[in-house]
Amino acid sequence: MQIWRADARRQVVKQEQTPPAWERLGGRGLIARILLDEVPPNCDSLGPHNKLVFAPGLLVGHRLSSCDRISVGGKSPLTGGVKESNAGGTTGLMLAHLGIKTLLIESAPMDDFWHILLLDSRGGRFEPANDLAGEGVYQTAENIRQRYGSGIGIALIGPGGQMQMLAAGIQNLDKDDEPSRINARGGLGALMGSKRLLAVVIDASSGEPPQLVDETLFKRAQQYFVDKLLEHPQTTVYADYGTSSMTMMCDGFGALPTRNFSSGTFEGARAISGEALRDLMLERGGESQTTHACMPGCTIRCSNCFADSSGKQIVSPIEYETIALLGSNLGIDDLDVIARLNWELNDLGLDTIEIGAALGVAAEAGLMEFGDGERALALVEEIRRNTPLGRTLGNGASFTGSALGVRRVPAVKGQAISAYDPRALKGTGVTYATSPQGADHTAGLTIRAKVNHLDPQGQVEISRNAQINMAGFDTLGACLFSGFGFADAPGAIRDLLIGRYGWDVPDDILQQLGEETLQLERAFNRAAGFSAADDRLPEWMTTEPLPPHNRVFDIGAEDLDGV
Amino acid sequence: MQIWRADARRQVVKQEQTPPAWERLGGRGLIARILLDEVPPNCDSLGPHNKLVFAPGLLVGHRLSSCDRISVGGKSPLTGGVKESNAGGTTGLMLAHLGIKTLLIESAPMDDFWHILLLDSRGGRFEPANDLAGEGVYQTAENIRQRYGSGIGIALIGPGGQMQMLAAGIQNLDKDDEPSRINARGGLGALMGSKRLLAVVIDASSGEPPQLVDETLFKRAQQYFVDKLLEHPQTTVYADYGTSSMTMMCDGFGALPTRNFSSGTFEGARAISGEALRDLMLERGGESQTTHACMPGCTIRCSNCFADSSGKQIVSPIEYETIALLGSNLGIDDLDVIARLNWELNDLGLDTIEIGAALGVAAEAGLMEFGDGERALALVEEIRRNTPLGRTLGNGASFTGSALGVRRVPAVKGQAISAYDPRALKGTGVTYATSPQGADHTAGLTIRAKVNHLDPQGQVEISRNAQINMAGFDTLGACLFSGFGFADAPGAIRDLLIGRYGWDVPDDILQQLGEETLQLERAFNRAAGFSAADDRLPEWMTTEPLPPHNRVFDIGAEDLDGV
Repeated sequence: MQIWRADARRQVVKQEQTPPAWERLGGRGLIARILLDEVPPNCDSLGPHNKLVFAPGLLVGHRLSSCDRISVGGKSPLTGGVKESNAGGTTGLMLAHLGIKTLLIESAPMDDFWHILLLDSRGGRFEPANDLAGEGVYQTAENIRQRYGSGIGIALIGPGGQMQMLAAGIQNLDKDDEPSRINARGGLGALMGSKRLLAVVIDASSGEPPQLVDETLFKRAQQYFVDKLLEHPQTTVYADYGTSSMTMMCDGFGALPTRNFSSGTFEGARAISGEALRDLMLERGGESQTTHACMPGCTIRCSNCFADSSGKQIVSPIEYETIALLGSNLGIDDLDVIARLNWELNDLGLDTIEIGAALGVAAEAGLMEFGDGERALALVEEIRRNTPLGRTLGNGASFTGSALGVRRVPAVKGQAISAYDPRALKGTGVTYATSPQGADHTAGLTIRAKVNHLDPQGQVEISRNAQINMAGFDTLGACLFSGFGFADAPGAIRDLLIGRYGWDVPDDILQQLGEETLQLERAFNRAAGFSAADDRLPEWMTTEPLPPHNRVFDIGAEDLDGV
Repeated sequence: MQIWRADARRQVVKQEQTPPAWERLGGRGLIARILLDEVPPNCDSLGPHNKLVFAPGLLVGHRLSSCDRISVGGKSPLTGGVKESNAGGTTGLMLAHLGIKTLLIESAPMDDFWHILLLDSRGGRFEPANDLAGEGVYQTAENIRQRYGSGIGIALIGPGGQMQMLAAGIQNLDKDDEPSRINARGGLGALMGSKRLLAVVIDASSGEPPQLVDETLFKRAQQYFVDKLLEHPQTTVYADYGTSSMTMMCDGFGALPTRNFSSGTFEGARAISGEALRDLMLERGGESQTTHACMPGCTIRCSNCFADSSGKQIVSPIEYETIALLGSNLGIDDLDVIARLNWELNDLGLDTIEIGAALGVAAEAGLMEFGDGERALALVEEIRRNTPLGRTLGNGASFTGSALGVRRVPAVKGQAISAYDPRALKGTGVTYATSPQGADHTAGLTIRAKVNHLDPQGQVEISRNAQINMAGFDTLGACLFSGFGFADAPGAIRDLLIGRYGWDVPDDILQQLGEETLQLERAFNRAAGFSAADDRLPEWMTTEPLPPHNRVFDIGAEDLDGV
């Protein structure tokens, strides 16, 4: 596996041997290591000194169920700190098939011309792409396929990233060539836009899966893991309901963000629940799919395709976090409206969590009535038209709060809190506050811990373990949901790594990778100017009780600093 | 002298003895001490835990020439760090005459009603003022005088502060009852707005100057200082030209901000010079005044009144920093346009430096042509109408840059760089980068140092001394320009303090006060999450050469950290 460096200013791509210090890292951990080694922590996130890093996880390349995720990172334009955001789809697999351990996009052009970075087994080159700029993500992906043929991988930005909005993400093709798998959080699309890079196009047709040092061991561990994953009852839930099974669970915990986080329960929760979603998809048929895999080889298949009443697809997938932030958080109880908002934001290449939170703040400022889906769509149209208001929303919740003079902003380190209110789910609140990534449920969700989530006791410990495990999975390239399988298949991760690399691997490799990753990330953030003062939830969440349980976030600064 | 605490939620005002640790501080130094002692460094700047502090300097109360300034401070809504901003006018004098060492506005109301805080020799009380909200500063000041009579002091906010815009300041009456003396920087008007306080009204008619322990010594030192001040040639320049004499000086140094800091020299500089301004005022006559005192007893009289061609006053005063930021920085070479912009921003209660810089950024984003004064006025009208674009501009340059996707933003710690480009005036660049206040020329201007301002050598030392001296003056309540007098009257500050307070005072008291103040400020900022990473100029200023000298800012991180 090699390091590929693409210089966006000089428009050349070089291949290098992997330095020893990077060898045993991948995905999120490798990104943290690279940022510490090569990116000045104080640099302008959208300036030439920042780097955009693509890094498949350590296990990526073998269609191991839900373990082919692509991590993308850099200094976050949104938070100013370390950022890694991972996604499914085919990008990770294809980069690994070209033998790319990590791709670094460096420097920035002096002019305004857009380019595509084309990677294949002969190397990489920049190709002019001005004619492809300006369109939405779906059309752009189609235009790129027209130009480069099918069977390619694409990681692209949309209008949001091209306009360098701070909520912009990067979209990857799923196994059906839909550009629906998003490195959503932290503004990495804006960072890619600052390099004037419209897309990375990957032709891995001459590539092959990375070599296995001990194929027998690898395959045996793979089978063990997949068997355990398939046996797990949660896997069936995900296949049937996807992430949307969370809606009623969160409403039950009183943690469902409702009307800009002013309530944890929503009278319209049932109408936007996983059950309602599944019933609607089954009833409508056509292009509806209640279960769908985002990556080749995934056995969980938590994704879905949501069609309108005529059976024509509106958007795929529709996820819980989107349902919560664009639904209950805006007082909207109509899945069709949520799906249309979802499609629009996907097409703009923006993070639905961040924009949903920004719209909630805008509603609080009086720019829309809660529940008015048409007005929400009109505000999203402002983003597309790049108006001052649209730019404000496109920069996310924290920015929108400052712009509109709203104090009740759900954000940490400038990044929006996602679909789990921390006053009712305090362990996840600890994660939001202390994760080097800013507020992000995927950094350490604690909802499945068997504790009273309203009780502040013990939550720091629960969050710490979740954060370590998640940083480990993100370094392996393993999906959050693969954890159910790995938990029931002790030694599988160890054997997969030995089988692939032949390294000495300890039993607790997941935790070791996670701890190392978090330490690297915290070191970068410290150098970028972060301190304990940044490891806090917004002040109003510590004083304003959340219905229905009427609790505040009451885990003290000392406990948070102990994480 | 007592501490007055006004609780904006419970609407009560208490008087307390001064604690020993606060005794020997005033103005800026006392504010830093109070913030460290009483304000949680991580609190929401616009939330109930922040405090708005009024503190006359140690020498305030005796009409000592240009030494009756009022410091106002708090945790800055703009920078998130320590903030002190001082102004002339009568507020400081009147607070001192009521025996108020410092006034703390604490907590925040739960409702939306506006109040006035009325202070007189019987104490303080909150009075309803909803009917006075919503108007511009000039009309509001007039309405308050109608209600409370003449001869009062007023510190008030305008629409900008009421809308909690981050560039909002607090305005004080000058000796002619004009609300023209502004605590401009750092968003203190937004902080006052968050307390729902429209104005502090001071009736000091039953008050008296603070007691002098040794009146003879005080008067002798006063006479010595004033004689030296009047002898100084610079004092005559200030009387004739005010601060606007700087325009040609900065243009000569190549440091005049021009078209969003893209050049240090402006082809229209002469048309907006101090000479042109003076000639125009002399030619127009009427309400024009080329020299004017902002405080009773000031012998420098650097202020002015600018009238239109019919002799009717447009605005008073018009200062160099305003001329540069709203003039050359926007490519505008018409003093009448600059004066109208100045009046509008005064009436909105906004910092002309911050908004001038924001408009420069907006011009770079294509929202106006450089040189188009009518468009600049239209953009200011957006602020008044509280539109999303207006709110963005009203939040200052850094915010506008993020909102509009502009990277060339002149700001440090979120506060706009003022009228001296640091690439051509490197000592002032060190001040901008390292001052705990954020970019602010008054924290340590180095333009009068007899060095090559383009040469990075030695600038750290020059800035350090200037910062210490300025922090000292700001703690005394002494105007920047009084420094010419104090420099030529060794021992005068010591004797004034001994005469007033009877303390043991060392010869280097100015430096001791300055150093103590800066240490307190840095301690607060550290606790608020600031680090060396924040003590930097914007990255582009280190790579983009400034015409005509084509230099970048090249003082390294290590040198900056040594300040």
